[in-house]
Amino acid sequence: MPKVTFTPDGTAVTVAPGENLLRAAMLADVAVSASCGGDGTCGKCRMVVEQGTVDTTVTAKLTAEEIERGYVLACLSTVTDDVTVHVPLESRPGKAPVRGGSSRQPNVVLSPEDRAVRVPRQASPPPVAKRLLRMNAPDLTDNINDASRVKQTLKRVHGIREATISLPALRELPQAARDGEWVVTAFAAEPCDTMPIVSGFQAGDTTSRQYAVAVDVGTTTVEIALIDLNSGEVVASGNEYNSQVARGDDVISRVIAASKPGGLDDLNTLIVGTLRDLVEGALARADVSAEDIVSYYVAGNTVMTHLLLKISPEFIRTSPYVPVASEFPWMRAAQLGLPGGRATRLYVTPCPASWLGGDIVAGLVAAGVPWTEKLTLFIDVGTNGEIVLGNSEWLVSCSCSAGPAFEGGGILHGMRAADGAIEQVRIDDATLVPTIMTIGGVKPIGICGSGLIDCAAELFMCGALGRDGKFRTDLDSAHLVQGERGLEYLLVAAEESGTGRRIVLTEVDVENLMRAKAAIFSGISVLAESLDLSLDAVEEVVIAGGFGHYLDLERVTALGMVPEIAPERFVFLGNGSLLGAKLVAGSREVLRTARHTAETITYLELSVNAGFMDHYSSALFFPHTDLSLFPTTEKLRKQRFTNLAVI
Amino acid sequence: MPKVTFTPDGTAVTVAPGENLLRAAMLADVAVSASCGGDGTCGKCRMVVEQGTVDTTVTAKLTAEEIERGYVLACLSTVTDDVTVHVPLESRPGKAPVRGGSSRQPNVVLSPEDRAVRVPRQASPPPVAKRLLRMNAPDLTDNINDASRVKQTLKRVHGIREATISLPALRELPQAARDGEWVVTAFAAEPCDTMPIVSGFQAGDTTSRQYAVAVDVGTTTVEIALIDLNSGEVVASGNEYNSQVARGDDVISRVIAASKPGGLDDLNTLIVGTLRDLVEGALARADVSAEDIVSYYVAGNTVMTHLLLKISPEFIRTSPYVPVASEFPWMRAAQLGLPGGRATRLYVTPCPASWLGGDIVAGLVAAGVPWTEKLTLFIDVGTNGEIVLGNSEWLVSCSCSAGPAFEGGGILHGMRAADGAIEQVRIDDATLVPTIMTIGGVKPIGICGSGLIDCAAELFMCGALGRDGKFRTDLDSAHLVQGERGLEYLLVAAEESGTGRRIVLTEVDVENLMRAKAAIFSGISVLAESLDLSLDAVEEVVIAGGFGHYLDLERVTALGMVPEIAPERFVFLGNGSLLGAKLVAGSREVLRTARHTAETITYLELSVNAGFMDHYSSALFFPHTDLSLFPTTEKLRKQRFTNLAVI
Repeated sequence: MPKVTFTPDGTAVTVAPGENLLRAAMLADVAVSASCGGDGTCGKCRMVVEQGTVDTTVTAKLTAEEIERGYVLACLSTVTDDVTVHVPLESRPGKAPVRGGSSRQPNVVLSPEDRAVRVPRQASPPPVAKRLLRMNAPDLTDNINDASRVKQTLKRVHGIREATISLPALRELPQAARDGEWVVTAFAAEPCDTMPIVSGFQAGDTTSRQYAVAVDVGTTTVEIALIDLNSGEVVASGNEYNSQVARGDDVISRVIAASKPGGLDDLNTLIVGTLRDLVEGALARADVSAEDIVSYYVAGNTVMTHLLLKISPEFIRTSPYVPVASEFPWMRAAQLGLPGGRATRLYVTPCPASWLGGDIVAGLVAAGVPWTEKLTLFIDVGTNGEIVLGNSEWLVSCSCSAGPAFEGGGILHGMRAADGAIEQVRIDDATLVPTIMTIGGVKPIGICGSGLIDCAAELFMCGALGRDGKFRTDLDSAHLVQGERGLEYLLVAAEESGTGRRIVLTEVDVENLMRAKAAIFSGISVLAESLDLSLDAVEEVVIAGGFGHYLDLERVTALGMVPEIAPERFVFLGNGSLLGAKLVAGSREVLRTARHTAETITYLELSVNAGFMDHYSSALFFPHTDLSLFPTTEKLRKQRFTNLAVI
Repeated sequence: MPKVTFTPDGTAVTVAPGENLLRAAMLADVAVSASCGGDGTCGKCRMVVEQGTVDTTVTAKLTAEEIERGYVLACLSTVTDDVTVHVPLESRPGKAPVRGGSSRQPNVVLSPEDRAVRVPRQASPPPVAKRLLRMNAPDLTDNINDASRVKQTLKRVHGIREATISLPALRELPQAARDGEWVVTAFAAEPCDTMPIVSGFQAGDTTSRQYAVAVDVGTTTVEIALIDLNSGEVVASGNEYNSQVARGDDVISRVIAASKPGGLDDLNTLIVGTLRDLVEGALARADVSAEDIVSYYVAGNTVMTHLLLKISPEFIRTSPYVPVASEFPWMRAAQLGLPGGRATRLYVTPCPASWLGGDIVAGLVAAGVPWTEKLTLFIDVGTNGEIVLGNSEWLVSCSCSAGPAFEGGGILHGMRAADGAIEQVRIDDATLVPTIMTIGGVKPIGICGSGLIDCAAELFMCGALGRDGKFRTDLDSAHLVQGERGLEYLLVAAEESGTGRRIVLTEVDVENLMRAKAAIFSGISVLAESLDLSLDAVEEVVIAGGFGHYLDLERVTALGMVPEIAPERFVFLGNGSLLGAKLVAGSREVLRTARHTAETITYLELSVNAGFMDHYSSALFFPHTDLSLFPTTEKLRKQRFTNLAVI
């Protein structure tokens, strides 16, 4: 991986090829002026390439002479190979940070190879696959019926016993067998929980074309992958907002909408429509026929799962908060109105509890938790923070109402992780001048979860924000200003934002963030306590969700959202729900493990947990009431304090 | 049961209460003139009640004085109690038969009580039944999901483990549970071959209303019974011609019709329509809601089964004559378009071979064959004669192409067993004057299977028909006449028939009958031979089919259709297919036995059997080439011979 060295400090960082140069600087904690979010419009993040080259876009913000001399805008440049760049004085927000050179790696998002190691590759076929049947034609001495001939061959060649052949499949069989001259391809499911079933036939050998669709049904985003079951490769993928967003941002508002007359049908139609569009798009791009989809594998939270299956989630919302089901029968994709042939089946990852869904089960599978001996802490942060602690032997879990802060809710200028969202922030210790980076590298229009954490953590670490989440009132900075709602931190001036209005962080925002992070931390504490385990015993922390990509460990720890655990023990999973669904699609043993995981996981209901409120109150400080839990953070913070310009 | 004594002979016979007096006379082998078939129009069957009374209809054929003296028309009278009747000289076709008094019983058609003894009543619930679930309402300390709550109760209270709850059932569950205040009724199937499934829910306790529909899908007739599963009683029943009859009389013509473009859909629509009408009628008569049908249990021959399920039977017709399947998955009644709720399921009795269907499997069950140690010969005669030999240990079977003779096909005046069909015939030994009885007691319009057998057997026994099936040419009878096609036996004169035309039996008719009976007998012989068994070893003979009701054992044996086995070893089953379906509806163990029977029965394909043709040729005589097989018949025949008036 390319290494980027920033002069004059000599700070170096290793990044993924193609990484944005401004992002590399932020990763290396090199302070750089940048206020347009990476749009290339403010022209502040000027750097000079000293050794090596970067891919860059020509911009009118640089003169021909500057370009000749090696100037680039960092936000418009990407790193492909080792490079040394100079950060000139004019690009620095103030004086250089005192912090020494960093050799941090970007967050380790597990690669397919990593996951292959974590999830044992048992010699196990996909749960649903095409099976080639080469049969003898019947004659007068061997005139058993077509179905028995199929079953004999399934058993003899594929080891599949006692298969049931569905009625639609029986209807297809006689012609397929004769058209294929007794070579037929069967859609055979071995579902683990019930008997094998053959759901369809095609004449001849069509086994070279068999695909599965892995689906993550998120409250906000729906993501799919079309997998070639022969190669195991994803041949097309796609993601789209869940069109239910029009009926409310969070799961609770969806439940309320579904509880109105006609609401369930409406929400079901919306999610099915989103999925159908995604799958049809993927099929078209990969030039795959819907008839060749053998199965869908769906993972989603409990409410999304209910809505997709058109099962009322109404009673999840009111005490005693029970879902209709945790396990769902295998079904036909056509039952849900999804693209596919008559044979196409659909599996739904079980949802252990109202607030612990199939997305988490799939995520655990994707992270290899059911196979590891390591004590693992699994965290998926969204509106709810789902937390699981355990290993292959046992798993205990809870769900914390983190509230919508991490998704931009309850934050004055909060927004979802979409183009224009500030997702990374660095703040100069002395002047409080921010460096920001937006998703899509466009003008900033708001702050998303990781930007919020970055911003608050930076302000806290440099001393501008107190342990109680209040701004210091004695600071000399143009960025800490009195607004209508009290002191505000000015992230983006009106003239530099994409909306024409200022983007600020208020004390109320910080308060909401405080509550969210406290919920997560106290959930973790309750789990550990329930097992009489110290958090020191945690050997690996898995952060699931797209949220993790640019989540800065040092900062997230500084706020006290996660325990202070050595950074090398953290891994970032990405979309664990989709990854898990993909893994289940490929292996019957993985599916069996997913089912087993869902059945055996212990769920702690925090709302009735005696210790939870104590833990929560203690966590309503940065990083925590008990500073002994965060010695490293405290040390770092004290170093940065010295730079702050007090009035 | 009432006893009828006929004077002056003193012949007595015991009959079922309500039996027709003319039929009683035929049963007693008392010759009576009757040519209108029991219509009351010929006025010939006059009798005088001497002791006791009969229920009779007043007729203008008798004078007031005659009525005063006790005269009745036998065909218009029914027997309710012991009675002695005089058969006056004018009612006798000729001189009285020399045969002595008979004490024969009518054919023993198994009663429900008889069958209950034969089919063990294991403590076994119906395969699909409503199950009452009284559950605790969830609270915060017990907030498992609704489906798990149902499963726990199913297991604890009903012993049903590992049930799958279908998607439609999951959709119904939350509201049903709350509407019923956690008392719900589940439609639970324990199908034997796969895992238990819950297919629907109703709020509250609805277990007092649960019904099953037993169905016999015959090629000609469809018969159903609506069964109250709580009492085991049939609350409504019905039968109707299979409307597929419009596409051909026999199974082969149906297969041909189904093989044409659009034909399968057409034939499926027809049979589904017939069934739907029957079921809707039964539901209306019994005031039962379709929602309360828990399941259908269907039995039919292999072709009818394929057509009902819309599975092509095309390849049954052409070598090597294979059906698509022998076993069929449980399905939803709605999949076939039959009346019912979303929860209503449907079971199809397996069809062991192309020419051995679920009707025979059901018949074996109804006759108790899978539970008996007795060596049993089971015969179901229709277009095909299906024959099974065995007991609870083993079963061997074959199907003989008897041809359509027994259903009236290939017989000049042949017809199906419908109103106006001559179903019983007695012939005066001396004059060859016939006594006939029609179905429905209306003017004769043709001859059905049992009438054909009666007629031919009578003619053979009295010597008018030779062992080779040819009429004697030297007889002095107005009833044996030269027609266009050679000698014909005149059964009904033109002026007495319902069609205005004569009804005759031709030598060609006899030839067709000969081939049909030879097929049956040689099938029986092949089965016995395959097991190296003598037919003497047969302990019980079961005759299935409506055909058996008035089938005269002496006569059917005289023709050599069945072996000469003591009459007391014969039982008549009636519609074994429907009876079996009804039994399966009531007991999971019976269903298991039916499945096991279908799986283990050995089917011999006569068309490739080396010995079959020899047996067949030997059987092309009345009663058989080898007269030593029929000693009693031969003795009786020689007695009757003496009466024949030779020219």
